[in-house]
Order: sequence, then C-alpha cells, then structure tokens
Amino acid sequence: MRMAAAALPLNFPDRPEQAAALLTRLRDRVAPGEPPVRVHAITNAAAQVLTANLLLAVGGVPSLTTAPDEATAFTARAGALLVNLGTLDADRRAAIPWAIATARAGGKPWVLDPVFVDASPPRLELARLCLAGQPAILRCNGAEFAALAGEEATQVAVVGFARSVGTVVALTGAVDWVTDGETLLRVENGHSLMTRVTAMGCAATALIAAFAALEADALTAAASALLVVGVAGDIAGETAQGPGTFQPAFIDAIAGLTPDTLRSRARIA
Amino acid sequence: MRMAAAALPLNFPDRPEQAAALLTRLRDRVAPGEPPVRVHAITNAAAQVLTANLLLAVGGVPSLTTAPDEATAFTARAGALLVNLGTLDADRRAAIPWAIATARAGGKPWVLDPVFVDASPPRLELARLCLAGQPAILRCNGAEFAALAGEEATQVAVVGFARSVGTVVALTGAVDWVTDGETLLRVENGHSLMTRVTAMGCAATALIAAFAALEADALTAAASALLVVGVAGDIAGETAQGPGTFQPAFIDAIAGLTPDTLRSRARIA
Amino acid sequence: MRMAAAALPLNFPDRPEQAAALLTRLRDRVAPGEPPVRVHAITNAAAQVLTANLLLAVGGVPSLTTAPDEATAFTARAGALLVNLGTLDADRRAAIPWAIATARAGGKPWVLDPVFVDASPPRLELARLCLAGQPAILRCNGAEFAALAGEEATQVAVVGFARSVGTVVALTGAVDWVTDGETLLRVENGHSLMTRVTAMGCAATALIAAFAALEADALTAAASALLVVGVAGDIAGETAQGPGTFQPAFIDAIAGLTPDTLRSRARIA
Repeated sequence: MRMAAAALPLNFPDRPEQAAALLTRLRDRVAPGEPPVRVHAITNAAAQVLTANLLLAVGGVPSLTTAPDEATAFTARAGALLVNLGTLDADRRAAIPWAIATARAGGKPWVLDPVFVDASPPRLELARLCLAGQPAILRCNGAEFAALAGEEATQVAVVGFARSVGTVVALTGAVDWVTDGETLLRVENGHSLMTRVTAMGCAATALIAAFAALEADALTAAASALLVVGVAGDIAGETAQGPGTFQPAFIDAIAGLTPDTLRSRARIA
Repeated sequence: MRMAAAALPLNFPDRPEQAAALLTRLRDRVAPGEPPVRVHAITNAAAQVLTANLLLAVGGVPSLTTAPDEATAFTARAGALLVNLGTLDADRRAAIPWAIATARAGGKPWVLDPVFVDASPPRLELARLCLAGQPAILRCNGAEFAALAGEEATQVAVVGFARSVGTVVALTGAVDWVTDGETLLRVENGHSLMTRVTAMGCAATALIAAFAALEADALTAAASALLVVGVAGDIAGETAQGPGTFQPAFIDAIAGLTPDTLRSRARIA
Repeated sequence: MRMAAAALPLNFPDRPEQAAALLTRLRDRVAPGEPPVRVHAITNAAAQVLTANLLLAVGGVPSLTTAPDEATAFTARAGALLVNLGTLDADRRAAIPWAIATARAGGKPWVLDPVFVDASPPRLELARLCLAGQPAILRCNGAEFAALAGEEATQVAVVGFARSVGTVVALTGAVDWVTDGETLLRVENGHSLMTRVTAMGCAATALIAAFAALEADALTAAASALLVVGVAGDIAGETAQGPGTFQPAFIDAIAGLTPDTLRSRARIA
C-alpha cells in the first residue's frame, strides 16, 4: 500500500474505512467492561477545554494535568500522550520531559504539537529537544514546519523531514498532508471556519493521539484523525452561522459522525 | 426530617421547594442594594470558564484567582470557597491551604472537589490533607470516593464516610447521592450528555458552594444544587443536538429555570 | 473635533464611520500579501479562549504566551500588547514588565485591563506600577476605576484621571465612557446578557488593542472597539436564548458585522 512520495497516490479506497473503524473502536470503549482510551494532554491554556470536549465527544477520557510530579502517573495510565508547546510555563517545562520518558518507557505513542515554534527561540530549542524524544507523530502547520526543518514546507521537504527524523508528519492547512517518509496522503476535507476558531488544530492533534493509542501504524492513525476532523468540519460549516456557532456544531458533528457519512464525504488521496 | 440511611427516604416533598427557594435567593442578590453571592473558586484550568459562566447565569459573582498572595483577599470577601484539585500547579498548591484557612477563620463554608484523586498519589495525599480542613461538602465521583475512602462507593460506605469525616458527601453519577452521615438523598435528574462535556461536575460543585453561602444546612445546599443542575441538564438534553450544543443550552436552562419547572421536573428522594 | 468634557458632545456622525473603517482594515489584513494584525495578550485564564476567538473572528492573530522568556519575542512581532491582571501567577508577574518594556521599545501601543484590582491589595500595587508604564488605553469598570483613582467613577473624575495619567480611559458599564482627558464619548450599545458571560470585558479589551495597532489615536481606537462590541452584543441579544447561547451568537455577530449595520445601530455620542 505504501508508495514513494514522488509518485503521489491518487486514491486510497480503504482510508475512509480505516478511519471509520478507528472511530468505532474508540467509541466502543465506552461500553461496559472495555477500558476507555485515555489521552494525557499537556496542552496550552487556550486548547484545554476544546481538547477535552473533543475527546469526550468520541468516547475518550482526557486528562490535562501539568504538574511535574503528577505527569508520570497520568501518562502511565493513559494510552497515548499529547505534548503541545503552546503554553510553556514552569510546570509544563518540568513536566514534559518526564511525561515523554514515561510514554517511551511504557511503549506508548506520543504526539508533538509545536505551536508557534516559529515565534520564539526558546520554544524552538525546546521543540527540537522534544523531537529527539521520537514522537510517533509531529502535527504542525507550514510556518512551524519551516522553523523546525529549516526549509519551506514543500511536499518533498515534508516527506524528507519525516524520513530523516523517523516520525510521521501531519502538516495541516487548507489541505492536510500526512507522511511517514514514504507515503504521502492528502486530506482535503475541512472548512474555512476552522481557521477562525482557536485551538482547532490542537484539538485535532488530541484525536490523532487517541487513534494512535488504538492503531500501531502512525500514518493510519494520523490520517484517520484528520479525516474525521475534516469531515466533521465540513458538516459543521454547513449549519454554523459563523465562528461562534461553528465550535458547538463541530463537536456535535464529531459526536454524531457515522461510518456511512465518513465514507461518503471523505476526500483523501 | 432526617432518617437513618438504612431506611432510605422515599419522598421529600419539600426538597424541590428548598432548591427553588435557594435559586431565587441567589438570583435576588443581583437586585440593587443586596450584595451578590461571591464564590472564590480555586479550580482546574478546564473548569474555569464553565464555572464562572454557571455562577454568572444564576446571579453569583465568581472569582478564580490562584495566586497565593491574593487567595486570602478573594476568599475573605467571598461567601464560600471552592477548592478543586484538578490542576495542581505550584501557585494553587501554595494558595489552597491559605484560602482554606481564610474560609475557616471567617466561618465560611468551603467545598472540596478532589478531581482525579484516584489517578495520582501526590494528589491523593493532598486531598487527605484538605479533608482534614473540614470542608462543609465533599463532591466526588465513585472512583474518587473509593480512592479517598479506601473502599467501594456503596451507599453504606458513603454514609459511613460522611459521618466519620464530618462532612456532607455529594457523590455524583447516573444517580447522585447526597448524605450528611444520617440522611441519604438521591437525585435522579440529569442527562447522559453531561458526562460528555468537560467540567460539568466541577461547575456543579460551584453551585453547591454558592448555595452553601446562603444556607447553613450543607445537606440542603448540596442536594438543592445538584437538583438544579440535574433539571437544567434534563432540559438542555431535550434540545441539544449533541455534546457541543448541550453546553450553551445547559447554561441557558440554568439561567431560565423557574421554580415551577424545578418542582414539576424534580426527581429527588 | 475634540471638545471639553464639561460640554459633552451630543453627536459624532463620524464615529461609526471610523469604527467601520477600522473593522474593515482589520479584516482586510487577512488578504494575501498583507500582514495580519497580531495582538499578544497576557490575559487571565478565564479570558484566554474568548479573547482568542474574538480576535480570530475579526481577522486578527492572537498569541497568549505567558512565559517570561517568550513574552518579549511574541510582543516584538505583535502590533499591540494587552496586559490583563486577572490571573497573576508567577509567570505572568515576571512576563508582564518585560512585555511592556518590549512594546514601549518598539513604539507599539499597549492596553491595561486591571481586572478585580479592587479586590486584592497586591494586585492594586502591581496595577499602579503598570500604569506608570504608560498604557495607551486603560480599560476598567467602575469599581476598578475607583480603586485605582481613589475616587468614585464620575465623569469629571474619569476625565481628570485620564488627563493626569496621560492615558485614554475606557470605562465600561451599562453605558461605556471613553476619554482622553479632553473629549468624553459615550457608547450606549450593548446588551444586559454581556454581564452574564465571563470575560466579555476582557475580550472587548483585546479588540481595543487590535484597533490600537491600526490607529494612532487611542481615543478613536478604544471608542471604535467598544462600539463594535456593543453593536454585536445588541445583535446577539436578539437571538440568544440566554447567556449560554449568547456567547456563540456574539462571536458570530462580530464576525458578520457589516459597516452598514454598524452605522445604523451605533449609539455613540
């Protein structure tokens, strides 16, 4: 199924099925007897509520603790860790390396979201140290990629960076690119209002982490999550009156998304 | 009116009236000349906005400061204090004991919400120290109760724990239990979407604190608040399209709740 | 155009035009090739999400970092700085003076919002030190003004304080007053539900900052922002079912506000 990035795949008929299956597995964990999927999210202050609500909407269990002496316990009982650098207070700086170490020691995937790494030299340095901790997936936008990689976010550069660092890169924008350094997938779903609501990308990264807890192939986990988020965004954009009503409509759309709707609306290649 | 927990009360026709009276008293404080009910809430990062908006929706005045050197001034001018352990950064750890001491010195009720105390050993130890400061009300879920009490949350265990610690316990779940160690009340209102929105329980605890500022009987304050929250949840659940639209609908329902609606929908025994 | 405060202006036919022009300029910056207006907001925990969403709704780019070693970099690339004292943790206390110094060194306007300065002596002292850093605009309510100025918030007192401190004062309430110590403008738009949603005033201050980044006359920037916020509040109040649905409706109204609607609904004198 993997193809060289130079020959971009035009059609992956199974990608929507994979996303639908992951979404169903995540939701089914709320059934009695099944342990739910826990995601420990060390994330920025503006993203905490939306991140928690997105995870709850799909049956996940979020925790958000940033205290250094608690981060290990919360990460140890989670299925995946999310590290978002958007708020770097003293607690988070101390908690992040121990949380990453706990995830790695437990063989659990962790996802890095280097928010605004292009804006602050100390943050860029910290992001590079985090990358050395081998996240399963790096989720960023074009400006953040350019700061981290030292070159513009072309398809060739993104694929090359993923290969050299050994992480899946999920680069979000008008079209999302997801690559493991071999395959490059394009997710074309999503609505322009998503850029007018704070922390939409941060929340999407939390769903990537939840899927990564269920699916060992990080490329599939990341692409599936961005597909779910993009289709829910399409649906919410059809009823929202603006960015204010978009957010509750988006969470409703995520919660109500059916496999059939996902399949019929998916635009991934 | 108090009955032994072994013989559970089947019907308290006056409980909805008490809740309606407390809700009216809280709202009336926004009239000119009356000082409003202030609640100082040291609460977790994901709960701050919803907590503030719930209090504002019923005419209360929230403050959320976590700075250690300000916690005493804010608690001193509040009618009640809420301590929620969901975020335990350095500031909150330093602020909490002084805020509790200020509430106790002023003869004001304080309410403890030991979020995720089952997940983190340092948090459990801190919660036990807080409990020694004699909160008027402990609000928790089953897992948090079990961690604190060292046994499963059966009715007998909850009543016994309330009696031994000397605090009202409000254990929320599909059915809420509220007990002072003698009487045990059951609040059956509430909607399943409440478990899919972050910080709903935390925000409910803030209403408990607001009612405790107005009503010396902590059992009545806690049961009334959970009844108001549960009925508002029922109402919101009827119009919400999912967990995203549930939250604004819930705040609207809290703000618009009339004594008549409260009486007619109350399911408390 | 400036008149002595003693003779209050009854009609400024150009004020709505100025506000419409600033709103359009802010939005137009999202066009390709134009750098967007960045506002760095060191603001309180309850205000961060609403502040970011309000700025995004009008085409601004918010950043919210509070880390002391990052505040200078974020302020340096922003067009204006907002300092809100509602949360004063150790990071913000260390970050605020350096952020102010960065704004001043770069010749950029900064706006002070001394939330609850009436409630906490350490906060009052810090607010006075901030005022010495010459904000372009001070946004506060009556109680906060009285604490800072040492006298009740009469029109004469507010105008006198603005003149003596050398800052524009935007005093919000049922009617907003905006003065530079010479002219006093009254903005009469706004809806009572705005007082029932947390951080509405804080978010309004962020729009003041965004307009100040575009308009050197601080009186015009502040009055225009409060006019836009007030008219959007009027519109949202017409469709909201309560304080819960008011907030998304308000953000939609801000995002959809046209110059024509602004002109026809403006009540400023």
